[in-house]
Amino acid sequence: MPLNLKNFINSQASKSKMNDFQDLDHLEGVSMSTICANLYDKPRDDLVMFYFRDGANYASVYTQSKIVSENIKWNQNVKKKKIKSLLINTRNANAFTGPDGYKGLKEIAEEISIELSKKQIEDEDHPKKILVDEIIFGCTGTIGEKYPTEKIKNCIPEIVNKIKYIQNKYLWMKAALGMMTTDLKPKLAMEECEIANKKIKIYGIAKGSGMIFPNMATTLGYVFTDADLSNDILNKLLKKNIETTFNAITCDGDTSTNDMVTIFSTGKANNIEIKSVNDKNIQNFDEALHSVLLNLAKRIVVDGEGATKLVTINVLKSKTDEDAKKIAFSIANSPLVKTAISGCDPNWGRIIMAIGKAGIDIEINKLSIKLGSLKVVEKGQLSKTYIESDAEVYMREEKKIDIDIELNLGKKNFTVYTMDLTKEYIEINSDYRS
Amino acid sequence: MPLNLKNFINSQASKSKMNDFQDLDHLEGVSMSTICANLYDKPRDDLVMFYFRDGANYASVYTQSKIVSENIKWNQNVKKKKIKSLLINTRNANAFTGPDGYKGLKEIAEEISIELSKKQIEDEDHPKKILVDEIIFGCTGTIGEKYPTEKIKNCIPEIVNKIKYIQNKYLWMKAALGMMTTDLKPKLAMEECEIANKKIKIYGIAKGSGMIFPNMATTLGYVFTDADLSNDILNKLLKKNIETTFNAITCDGDTSTNDMVTIFSTGKANNIEIKSVNDKNIQNFDEALHSVLLNLAKRIVVDGEGATKLVTINVLKSKTDEDAKKIAFSIANSPLVKTAISGCDPNWGRIIMAIGKAGIDIEINKLSIKLGSLKVVEKGQLSKTYIESDAEVYMREEKKIDIDIELNLGKKNFTVYTMDLTKEYIEINSDYRS
Repeated sequence: MPLNLKNFINSQASKSKMNDFQDLDHLEGVSMSTICANLYDKPRDDLVMFYFRDGANYASVYTQSKIVSENIKWNQNVKKKKIKSLLINTRNANAFTGPDGYKGLKEIAEEISIELSKKQIEDEDHPKKILVDEIIFGCTGTIGEKYPTEKIKNCIPEIVNKIKYIQNKYLWMKAALGMMTTDLKPKLAMEECEIANKKIKIYGIAKGSGMIFPNMATTLGYVFTDADLSNDILNKLLKKNIETTFNAITCDGDTSTNDMVTIFSTGKANNIEIKSVNDKNIQNFDEALHSVLLNLAKRIVVDGEGATKLVTINVLKSKTDEDAKKIAFSIANSPLVKTAISGCDPNWGRIIMAIGKAGIDIEINKLSIKLGSLKVVEKGQLSKTYIESDAEVYMREEKKIDIDIELNLGKKNFTVYTMDLTKEYIEINSDYRS
Repeated sequence: MPLNLKNFINSQASKSKMNDFQDLDHLEGVSMSTICANLYDKPRDDLVMFYFRDGANYASVYTQSKIVSENIKWNQNVKKKKIKSLLINTRNANAFTGPDGYKGLKEIAEEISIELSKKQIEDEDHPKKILVDEIIFGCTGTIGEKYPTEKIKNCIPEIVNKIKYIQNKYLWMKAALGMMTTDLKPKLAMEECEIANKKIKIYGIAKGSGMIFPNMATTLGYVFTDADLSNDILNKLLKKNIETTFNAITCDGDTSTNDMVTIFSTGKANNIEIKSVNDKNIQNFDEALHSVLLNLAKRIVVDGEGATKLVTINVLKSKTDEDAKKIAFSIANSPLVKTAISGCDPNWGRIIMAIGKAGIDIEINKLSIKLGSLKVVEKGQLSKTYIESDAEVYMREEKKIDIDIELNLGKKNFTVYTMDLTKEYIEINSDYRS
């Protein structure tokens, strides 16, 4: 890596108050390494391996796209209850690569199985063989291009050899950097919590909406914890929390063939057994997991291509969750709303338009809209206290724009996070080849 | 009008081969006039009146938005079978204006009723009084701003006085210009056809995606014919043809509170009675109406803000119409596809992504994609004849880009028309106030 990691971390932390991940350190049961497999023309780490010596329970959510990449298909075929390794590559999405792409993963998994098994045997405590279906893959990058099976396979001995059993913040940062495509910043988040008086760590890394040529807006998120939780509990917690975090963000409304969020639990914290997500002992963990996922999701939005503002859209007092979500996404995905925000224009007419086109029955005379703390619309009328110049100042001076829509039809709320739509977005996405 | 209309029409016709509307002339039973009501700061015609001396049968389709403007509500309350007048204003959408906005329309309708009744009485053949519910309205412009009832009302005597009973192409052009907001070009189209050997004219005008501040992407389309057709037949023909024309275009996926397309038939052609849309005698008219609507719809797309290319997306051999439509709109509304087109990048990976996210079950190994006549994907594989540089030349040199998606799952097709997404779109929509 050409980057001086210590300097980089320190500069990031001071610049963006991202110091919450300065404390990522060793997470018992998780090992990792990164390597440059020359998947790009320029040298950079492009292959990241996670290794769980004693296996990890896990749960995943995948893209809702009807066209999925070969690695997503592979992962969905893995039936083992514990995972031993996750391999992430950038530059090639292994999507639309057909049987060849899938076969490539199989060959690489076999190589990983051989090399990791050797490593386990060296270690007298862990003589077990690693099986191919204890390995899952994350891929991001170009779609439709031949998957570089040989290049990756040839790097497996070295990446396995580089694995260290004790982790620190620099290794976590290298992993986050190693899975970036054109993300401007690595994305890390952490929380600590307790399960029945046992201290628990939750660490997460993600990559966001950066694109590489032919390109996708792939989202990858990986969360690691030393909690001891079953696959069933992990699955329920992930599914519940993903709805209000990764599934509540939108950059351009587009969805990738490769989107994937996985949580791994190594069980090293030796907490009491949790049999139900309703168990009070899991509440603290549940909230901390939400916080890690939301933190990563927001980092993805603010690092969205050309973004200058983080926009939070709260739809309040809706009849149903689904209605609130539809209205919130209709606003968040409206190019007219998003360009108004980039132009610092308190263009509430466009917000009204986006509410209307969501297709949800509303009652105009109950509708209220706020920009930050400024009341714009009250009970379907332009607020008597609304002064447009105040709203302009708010739009221009704040980096975080809050839009609150109160429907007053029920008790359900939904929040969506998005960014503004700028000329830089168009430049990045149209001028890539020029 | 500061514009010299004759020069304008001639320059438009020679530049853009839009000479198909050069022949718009008198349409028996339709009268019109335009006026500057000073709704804008700059002088320009902003009020357009159509007057049907003997009434016109009619049918309308309105916005699907859950928030509709006051004029749409007014029009929906009009129960008369024949319409005597249509008044169109720009600059103010009369949306989110509440009971005041509706009351304003009532006052204006009363004034029109008085003035047009006077005009009818002058004419011995037409002594009938014009009723308020024989009048409908088209509004476009700012939403949430007080409707300029007085300004418009005060102009009614003059606009009625200016009505001429014989029309020519300049009057049609003035009407098309008078309803523009920030459209760059007026939009007119015409066809001639026959109903059982009677010659029939179909003329249409429209305004498109131009915006004015706080702003909407309102679409207004008005079609006029001298055919004698019942409201029921007009309604069926309009609903059928709107699906593949105005409802098959997208500029930014946003929908206005004010969208409206209306067809008026004066009956002056004295054709035989048509009792069913399945009557063979209406087939020729049906096709001509489709052509006029499609012509107007395409003009709206190519005049879309910042557009440099007209993109036609054909989804072929789908199981159902609905599936084909969802996939076509998913591609047409994808900012990633639209920016790739503005960048002349044959980025078929983004097309795959947009197909996948449409949520329709497809079979990859049956999927084919073409860019113009170039085969890109065949049966789920990158075509062996595909040469990317050829595709780049196609994307760069053609102003009209065709994307064909063949699903090979059935017999249904759907075509959607859109434009590319350019930096100019962002400029127009974000920098308006600066």
